[in-house]
Amino acid sequence: MATEAETGDGRAPDHIEPLRVRFSDTDAGGIVHHSNFFRWLEEARLGLLRGIGVSYWTIADSGIHFPVTACSAEFRRSLRSEDQIEIALWLVGRSRARLEFRYEVRLDGSVVATAKTTHALVNDSGRPIRLERDSNLWNRLGELEGD
Amino acid sequence: MATEAETGDGRAPDHIEPLRVRFSDTDAGGIVHHSNFFRWLEEARLGLLRGIGVSYWTIADSGIHFPVTACSAEFRRSLRSEDQIEIALWLVGRSRARLEFRYEVRLDGSVVATAKTTHALVNDSGRPIRLERDSNLWNRLGELEGD
Amino acid sequence: MATEAETGDGRAPDHIEPLRVRFSDTDAGGIVHHSNFFRWLEEARLGLLRGIGVSYWTIADSGIHFPVTACSAEFRRSLRSEDQIEIALWLVGRSRARLEFRYEVRLDGSVVATAKTTHALVNDSGRPIRLERDSNLWNRLGELEGD
Amino acid sequence: MATEAETGDGRAPDHIEPLRVRFSDTDAGGIVHHSNFFRWLEEARLGLLRGIGVSYWTIADSGIHFPVTACSAEFRRSLRSEDQIEIALWLVGRSRARLEFRYEVRLDGSVVATAKTTHALVNDSGRPIRLERDSNLWNRLGELEGD
Repeated sequence: MATEAETGDGRAPDHIEPLRVRFSDTDAGGIVHHSNFFRWLEEARLGLLRGIGVSYWTIADSGIHFPVTACSAEFRRSLRSEDQIEIALWLVGRSRARLEFRYEVRLDGSVVATAKTTHALVNDSGRPIRLERDSNLWNRLGELEGD
Repeated sequence: MATEAETGDGRAPDHIEPLRVRFSDTDAGGIVHHSNFFRWLEEARLGLLRGIGVSYWTIADSGIHFPVTACSAEFRRSLRSEDQIEIALWLVGRSRARLEFRYEVRLDGSVVATAKTTHALVNDSGRPIRLERDSNLWNRLGELEGD
Repeated sequence: MATEAETGDGRAPDHIEPLRVRFSDTDAGGIVHHSNFFRWLEEARLGLLRGIGVSYWTIADSGIHFPVTACSAEFRRSLRSEDQIEIALWLVGRSRARLEFRYEVRLDGSVVATAKTTHALVNDSGRPIRLERDSNLWNRLGELEGD
Repeated sequence: MATEAETGDGRAPDHIEPLRVRFSDTDAGGIVHHSNFFRWLEEARLGLLRGIGVSYWTIADSGIHFPVTACSAEFRRSLRSEDQIEIALWLVGRSRARLEFRYEVRLDGSVVATAKTTHALVNDSGRPIRLERDSNLWNRLGELEGD
């Protein structure tokens, strides 16, 4: 079971993204394909960015990208089509070259999966970059951590 | 049943792409999700281009794109994970502004689905363009039709 | 442009499903992969069923399935990640052995794609069946048509 | 960088699955969506099973399933549509209740990603089960480990 430290030191999630499981998220096992959890985590990250007023497209158009360099998940329960879930996420690591998030996927208040993603910061050519210390994005993300 | 006219006037396919159905192509109904047939058709188009010596990336890098503007399919039989299928395709329409393909998805020699896609030609900004009459791509595609 | 006849004889949609485009719905062309439109149409059908009080799972558990036997779409505009769209759908054909739906995918009030799907009715083994004339599902669907 | 211990103690892979990246595996970032690596790993597991003569369907039809209970991946390089890759995998943990695999995704001989999946054994109802000690599957998997 994920400890508080693993999911953000007990602080409230930085964002909660509601999401309905699509039928096409399932596989012939009758349940959601595990790969699709990672697609939902991404939607939660985009929702977080919208929530702090910095849209994905603004960031991308300014030449900043956050590819996933590592990810992991543990699945406690399976999910089915039409399940109405919530993705809680926490920014748990922030440097000028790297971001780290933790997640809980919840159904009816109970945690069905926990996950973690690590992101590099790269430019349009895929080369590592560092966030400007006074950029809007850096400051907004900093406010999350300061919660 | 598709007539010869529907699938290329009886001439041999311009390309046959072998493909194994992925488990993640299936859904909770236990069979392949119908949307994935369109993903396979695309692989067959890429295979056709490779076969005539003009790779997708060369074309895309030269600023030419072929978005799907219309598509349709009829499904006769369902498919399962690991089925080893073939996609036969024919270029059935070619103008400087538009391409049209027809397809048969085959399992063990019998046709499980037929399909059709129509493509516009656009530049990097998504604006309609016309293929140059003497371009390599135009000429190579012309050779297919001349079969 | 789709005429009224094509999209339900001018009558109001039987259901409108709101949906946010996922980043994972896009492809390297920078826009939504055309196959994913068919996944959204399915969500709209599930939403319609929820709306008339007959959930997909109730129907599936009673041994009734609606596989797609034919589908088609025309794309007028491309869509991007995070676009907040609506899928309007109409039940345009209903017999005891077959259902037919038409759709409009809308962004900011304008139609970006139109589509159509045809469905057979089959049992758990995939064999054709006929809906009972007095079944709840048959009656509920009938109310839609009677609009 | 993955050590030998991490990828199977230096022994040759138990299976190598060749695979071509699909265009629909990519996203608007221009590269493969990270979630799709997990779909490829699954194809490699199915390939391994085919290779030792126990097909997925035979196992599933006998009421044995291997849902992923945990998974992780590290990405070193991005991949593009049509890249011809190889998935090397090793069975690194086997008990009657649990299987564990490690993977290398390779392009042109270099490792672009490493990954790990853990699987529970469950019956058709999703309840934990234990593999019979003398079952064909148990013995075949044992031969891999004995390499």
